[in-house]
Amino acid sequence: MSHRIAVIPGDGIGKEVMPEGLRALEAAAKRFGIDLSLEHFDFASCDYYAEHGQMLPDDWFEQLKGADAIFYGAVGWPETVPDHISLWGSLLQFRRRFDQYVNLRPCKLLPGVKSPLADRKPGDIDFYVVRENTEGEYSSVGGKMFEGTDREVVIQETVMTRTGVDRVLKYAYELAQSRPRKKLTSATKSNGIAITMPWWDERVKAMGVHYPEVSVDQFHIDILTANFVMHPDWFDVVVASNLFGDILSDLGPACTGTIGVAPSANINPDGHFPSLFEPVHGSAPDIAGKGIANPIGQVWSAAMMLEHLGHPKAGQAIVDAFEAVLAEGDKAVLTPDVGGHGTTEALGRAIAERI
Amino acid sequence: MSHRIAVIPGDGIGKEVMPEGLRALEAAAKRFGIDLSLEHFDFASCDYYAEHGQMLPDDWFEQLKGADAIFYGAVGWPETVPDHISLWGSLLQFRRRFDQYVNLRPCKLLPGVKSPLADRKPGDIDFYVVRENTEGEYSSVGGKMFEGTDREVVIQETVMTRTGVDRVLKYAYELAQSRPRKKLTSATKSNGIAITMPWWDERVKAMGVHYPEVSVDQFHIDILTANFVMHPDWFDVVVASNLFGDILSDLGPACTGTIGVAPSANINPDGHFPSLFEPVHGSAPDIAGKGIANPIGQVWSAAMMLEHLGHPKAGQAIVDAFEAVLAEGDKAVLTPDVGGHGTTEALGRAIAERI
Ligand SMILES: CC(C)[C@H](C(=O)O)[C@@H](O)C(=O)O
Ligand SMILES: CC(C)[C@H](C(=O)O)[C@@H](O)C(=O)O
Repeated sequence: MSHRIAVIPGDGIGKEVMPEGLRALEAAAKRFGIDLSLEHFDFASCDYYAEHGQMLPDDWFEQLKGADAIFYGAVGWPETVPDHISLWGSLLQFRRRFDQYVNLRPCKLLPGVKSPLADRKPGDIDFYVVRENTEGEYSSVGGKMFEGTDREVVIQETVMTRTGVDRVLKYAYELAQSRPRKKLTSATKSNGIAITMPWWDERVKAMGVHYPEVSVDQFHIDILTANFVMHPDWFDVVVASNLFGDILSDLGPACTGTIGVAPSANINPDGHFPSLFEPVHGSAPDIAGKGIANPIGQVWSAAMMLEHLGHPKAGQAIVDAFEAVLAEGDKAVLTPDVGGHGTTEALGRAIAERI
Repeated sequence: MSHRIAVIPGDGIGKEVMPEGLRALEAAAKRFGIDLSLEHFDFASCDYYAEHGQMLPDDWFEQLKGADAIFYGAVGWPETVPDHISLWGSLLQFRRRFDQYVNLRPCKLLPGVKSPLADRKPGDIDFYVVRENTEGEYSSVGGKMFEGTDREVVIQETVMTRTGVDRVLKYAYELAQSRPRKKLTSATKSNGIAITMPWWDERVKAMGVHYPEVSVDQFHIDILTANFVMHPDWFDVVVASNLFGDILSDLGPACTGTIGVAPSANINPDGHFPSLFEPVHGSAPDIAGKGIANPIGQVWSAAMMLEHLGHPKAGQAIVDAFEAVLAEGDKAVLTPDVGGHGTTEALGRAIAERI
């Protein structure tokens, strides 16, 4: 049985790291005898927008819904398309329409990568951020009044539902339960965000009743970001709303040395729709075109995708390969963000050879 | 002419650090011949709530509005009063009713304090967070529907006004203009928070027209938190909404070694109402009662208060004093968070003696 993978490189460095992600993916598929059928799409990119005046074709849902997974690069090119248009017209559509309600993001200090935190070594930082991925602060509900005048008022609504919050909490509790430390941390801000966040705290507590083995704590988001820097070893599984999860899953990887290596899985746990795998980093206009982007975020996303498709060994082989290449520390191979002077392609090839 | 200072210790370690804040304040006042008249208040604390069923007396506004400044410790005791009740019933009231629309928070790596960031020394981190302090994400507007059922929906509204945003941007631009680097960074999330944040970006741009010498950049809040850790030297003045400013002004001080030293000024720049000075840290129930809280956040807040009241030399004398004590590094005097085994009082006395 063949897995159908929809491949969407997107914009900027997305187009540069995708070939390396595919190289790793195909190497692992070959080694483990996995049958993949890749379909390439040029939409969900600002180039497509330039030509068609929209980010996606009208029938994108039909085109993608039969895929077993979506493998995405990065999207956004603010010089030509404002970010809120390119993102709401692509990635955020996928997350919602395919009900990918869990965004799972590992934060792990890898061998050979220098953490910006003093005295931290591999093993000290190793946790997951579980981010709600379909609702919350990411809304387009609201509007403006007295526009363009001194009385202008702008309102944006955060919308949370019991269905939406409970299901991601359940996923986070299950994940915590499956790990040796069995520890869950909830990101809140119930002292300032006075309606949604106290209610979020209640839901965390209510769900906890079903997981007596999991120990739970919570921090307000302000001090939680501080603790990521001061005590990254405290964390095992961190569950957060859409916005807080977005922040924590950039900050966490930064504490592990570079967001260039961080992967993410946008998961529809029910399996009704394809899940989507993409690096945490964006299209990075500042380094796009230079061929120096770190491909590991994309490569690691391929590993998460294989695991999701039922091939954990193949996924692990990819992780082992890039960890080995990083640990080796060959500066001619490593990209600048991890201390080398190599290219995206050189690092991608080195990883694929290892697999 | 005497300055009327309203003194409110609040809860937890607020009650422990306040005496040391006052010790420094009085030492500086004595040395520079400044006439202070202190008035002490027990409200705006959870003890007061326990007795009166509310955080503030009905006439708190009348009692405080004539003060030249409010010197606050910390508030919150979640064991007895939920945070959103204690905070909305005290600090957040003060900020709003006294229109303290600027929350100014320095992030500075001090001599003798070890940063959790590798290879950072004093001088490498030295910037201000200017936080909008009266509106935005901190709202109590919104509500619940289908409460207690599976269809439950919870809505919270972020409310921004042109008046509210423009005035804090103006303050931030002026501050950037007054500093040697003349650099302003705006915290945004216009790719996800699709109504308020693109509009925030427009206001930043519009205000910039009046400050051609100030160079401006912007980052989405997720990558901005990452850059605080990876490149804290990039920043000079950072301007942010209420929530983003809250996050950045805990994370920034954490990067400088401890949030125990960070001060804040809640300023009503128009001078119609008293401004409020308080440490960034909270009431810290976990260490309250042990006498080991770092008093420097409170002491530094006293320095900001003196500067605000027109006594910059007295403020500087306080800063010089705690910097000298930190640089000296006497472990018997320093509190545990900065590597010593001293008490709140020992550190407070050492600072006051220096003044
Ligand atoms: C206690 C809390 C409501 C407050 C805030 O979020 O503003 C605090 O974190 C601060 O930064 O002053
Ligand atoms: C590009 C942006 C809309 C997106 C998000 O905020 O979700 C990105 O930062 C991410 O984390 O996947």
